[in-house]
This record gives sequence, C-alpha cells and structure tokens, in this order.
Amino acid sequence: MSDTLFARIARGDLPCARVLETEHALAFLDINPVNVGHVLLIPKQAHRTVADLPDDLAAHLGSLLPRLCRAVQKVTGAPAFNVIANGGSAAGQTVFHVHWHIIPRHEDDAVRWPWPHSSYGDETLMKAMQDRLVEALTNAG
Amino acid sequence: MSDTLFARIARGDLPCARVLETEHALAFLDINPVNVGHVLLIPKQAHRTVADLPDDLAAHLGSLLPRLCRAVQKVTGAPAFNVIANGGSAAGQTVFHVHWHIIPRHEDDAVRWPWPHSSYGDETLMKAMQDRLVEALTNAG
Repeated sequence: MSDTLFARIARGDLPCARVLETEHALAFLDINPVNVGHVLLIPKQAHRTVADLPDDLAAHLGSLLPRLCRAVQKVTGAPAFNVIANGGSAAGQTVFHVHWHIIPRHEDDAVRWPWPHSSYGDETLMKAMQDRLVEALTNAG
Repeated sequence: MSDTLFARIARGDLPCARVLETEHALAFLDINPVNVGHVLLIPKQAHRTVADLPDDLAAHLGSLLPRLCRAVQKVTGAPAFNVIANGGSAAGQTVFHVHWHIIPRHEDDAVRWPWPHSSYGDETLMKAMQDRLVEALTNAG
C-alpha cells in the first residue's frame, strides 16, 4: 500500500487540526471543507476503503460517529449533516486511506447532491439481487 | 418518535428484501436504488439520526459495513461504492430512522455528486473551529 496523505497524518508526520484521538483513530478538520466544520475520521492503521476494514476497527470508527456528529452540529449550528465514506475513484474517493466525512449541512447551502433513484420494475430482478447478496454474505462474512 | 417506514420494516410489519439480519440490525435492498444492488442498513431500535445512536449500537452497525460493502461489490461487479447516512432534511434525509446507504458505483454511472470544496483561508478561523470542536467533544462525549 502506497503511503497516503492520511497515513502520514496518522503517524504524525504531517500536521492536522486534530479534534479527537483514540488509540486507533484520529479525527481532524478537512482543510478544504464542503462547509466550515467538516471533519474527517480515519483509522490510524492504513486500509484503502471501508470494505477492507477489519470488523473491530470498523466498529470502533462507527462508535465515534455519534459524538462527532453531535459536536459538529453543536459548534456549527447546522440543522443537518452527511456522514460519507467513498470507496474507490468511481465513487469520488481521492485519498486511498479510509476516511469518514462528517459534513455539517445548512438549509440552502451550496451543496447539490441529487439522488437519481430508479426502480427495479420487475420483481424478478430484485429477488435475484437479494438471493445473490444473501449468498455472498453467507459464504464470505 | 413517529412510526417510520423503517421502524415498521424492522418490526416485520412491512416486507423487505432482507439480505442480512442480526439481533439489533437489518439490511435490505432499497426499492428505489440509486444503482441496482443499493442496500440499506438500519438499527432495529428507532433512532432519528447517527447523532442519536448509542455508541454500542453505532459500533454494531459500523461492524457490519465492511462485509456489506464487499458483498455489494462482489454481486454487482461495481468497482466502487458510497456509504452514506444523511442526518436531517437539509442533508437529504427523508425517512427519520437511521439508515446507512451502501451504494454500488460504476464508472460513468448516472450519479453526479460534486463536492463544492471551499477553504478556510484565514488560519484563525480554522483554529477557532478546532478549539470549539475539541471543547464540545471534551465536555459532551
């Protein structure tokens, strides 16, 4: 795994505006925020995407999200927030070290993230997708 | 708390295309997928947003995300995925029961989610935001 920006921050080789730190995780301000107060939460251990995280580390990161969301809302006064992890370049990931974005959101802010919902139409397709996911989740873990 | 669509699904009062279930969580196909194979992960207990989750339940949900991301990628063949929780209507939340979206993403799919990055410019503003977040995280938990 190549040495990413966030791996260097996690090791302390690069500075960050740290807001929370545990033995296995670090949260700091995104220097290019979507909105002011945008926080990133990363594991100290280098993993590329959420799909690559060991379950216990994913759980630890998950356990820190509620308090980070509350703090971001309290400090920014934002009525809302997005929590986002992008996995892979086709999903918008640019630094290949897992990072959760906690993004404060305001009514009528500059963010436009439309959700182009579709529909399965044919129930057969939905059932087939369900069956394949159940099989993948049963066999893999 | 009003009775949401997802609370009714969690209780089994409404059907869903279930793909994974634990004592405290349920994952199923979104019936209006952003892309085919779009999965939702919810706690069975009703909480409005990630900010409202007890830490242990947030950890449990977090621990299930890696295997769900892997299964979604395996079954859809998607090279990438987004994991998203929207908290509050200004952030795009429409059902007020915590739900994680696991959305398979393909090169050149129909999704356009531009990230309007800004900058703090003045370091004083960034430092003030950091100090207030540290204080909020220290005092609240």
